[in-house]
Amino acid sequence: MRAGLPVAAAWGVQVLEAEASGRAVLLLPRQEGLLRPGGTVCGPAIMGLADMAVWCALLARTGGRDLSLTAAQNATFLSAAGPGPLTAQARLIKPHGRLLFAEVLILRKDVPHPVAHITATWAARPG
Amino acid sequence: MRAGLPVAAAWGVQVLEAEASGRAVLLLPRQEGLLRPGGTVCGPAIMGLADMAVWCALLARTGGRDLSLTAAQNATFLSAAGPGPLTAQARLIKPHGRLLFAEVLILRKDVPHPVAHITATWAARPG
Amino acid sequence: MRAGLPVAAAWGVQVLEAEASGRAVLLLPRQEGLLRPGGTVCGPAIMGLADMAVWCALLARTGGRDLSLTAAQNATFLSAAGPGPLTAQARLIKPHGRLLFAEVLILRKDVPHPVAHITATWAARPG
Amino acid sequence: MRAGLPVAAAWGVQVLEAEASGRAVLLLPRQEGLLRPGGTVCGPAIMGLADMAVWCALLARTGGRDLSLTAAQNATFLSAAGPGPLTAQARLIKPHGRLLFAEVLILRKDVPHPVAHITATWAARPG
Repeated sequence: MRAGLPVAAAWGVQVLEAEASGRAVLLLPRQEGLLRPGGTVCGPAIMGLADMAVWCALLARTGGRDLSLTAAQNATFLSAAGPGPLTAQARLIKPHGRLLFAEVLILRKDVPHPVAHITATWAARPG
Repeated sequence: MRAGLPVAAAWGVQVLEAEASGRAVLLLPRQEGLLRPGGTVCGPAIMGLADMAVWCALLARTGGRDLSLTAAQNATFLSAAGPGPLTAQARLIKPHGRLLFAEVLILRKDVPHPVAHITATWAARPG
Repeated sequence: MRAGLPVAAAWGVQVLEAEASGRAVLLLPRQEGLLRPGGTVCGPAIMGLADMAVWCALLARTGGRDLSLTAAQNATFLSAAGPGPLTAQARLIKPHGRLLFAEVLILRKDVPHPVAHITATWAARPG
Repeated sequence: MRAGLPVAAAWGVQVLEAEASGRAVLLLPRQEGLLRPGGTVCGPAIMGLADMAVWCALLARTGGRDLSLTAAQNATFLSAAGPGPLTAQARLIKPHGRLLFAEVLILRKDVPHPVAHITATWAARPG
């Protein structure tokens, strides 16, 4: 994923888990360059991380070949994200058909519920 | 905005217009580091650009002081974005109250309709 | 539309305008059966009205034959809707391709901005 | 809920489960009046059912007194809903604070994944 997506490499995103069942867990480390005023991770970084996590779940499912495209993404910010690190847990809810659907939870250590909740629709394109 | 948000500076985002009525137009130049496989601007860059455009419209409205936070963002990708440049036109639809609401059109030269449509809800926090 | 959709008939929804360019304006009259506690039009009625308005805009465009299906709908409630009547202004932003995209403004008399803003994606299926 | 919301009563919606932890399961029976062309439950009915399910989960949590309002609802339609019956499983993901957040799965018998996925943000107002 980092090879294909320079933004992921630039942000230092790490893939912690990727399961063929259609799950992936990514880590966004703390980085000064991704903070917004107030010292919390900026919205673009959180939405981008979620997008990468879904793509990773798709790649895990298809063995690393997948050209699917984001068709829609809805993000809701639930609590202060803090300065990072953050983890993103992506899970494919509908892994088949022309339109795929996934959910991503953005988690912050020591906060019991997700700090952001994202759903994403992808247009399927086998690699 | 670029001072407050390192990501905007890193991406080379330029503010073309910013009106006190609550409008802003931003330019995302073509950048190799923001492309995804296939050679088009990646989703995270488009969603991030939209977020920056709304913040710019808020800053224009409040004279440069504003600590409002993104509460939700919904993005729909309508057509191929291409490699850039892209412009983002943000407009506050509901500029008053606790929750603000804005719409952003992502435009590509020579494509008549927006290549992406984004709506955003922000939690108001005067600067 | 009322022939095809019993809910529209049951709610007394009226089509005020429908243009082949892909616009439609619908009226939801005041009805006790659609209120929620507090005496305002309930969310289901507003979301349903928006869905009907998009369908009407599609039917206007295709001359009354269209089997397209709602693929996604995002609604944001901006202000108190009151007891009705309400009007819905639908407009196709992307009228071509496999996925169509529309915007609906829900308007209440004497309120300058929309009381609700809805976007909808439809999977195109010619009639 | 049916006392407060005439639409729920008109549609014959039944509350199958409601837990103080913030969960609710509702049943929408098969009804000719809620079908759309093609013989499947119409979008307005599904979006309305989801809204009712979230309200039920809130009422279960607060012991039947709650004046919270829908602030936003995002619905994605994943598969054919069929003619009904449908069940809606609502769960509060963020049950505290000014803005509450819930997820609703719309399930059809014999289909392994949800036929629709809905997220909702509610503005909290204690009863």
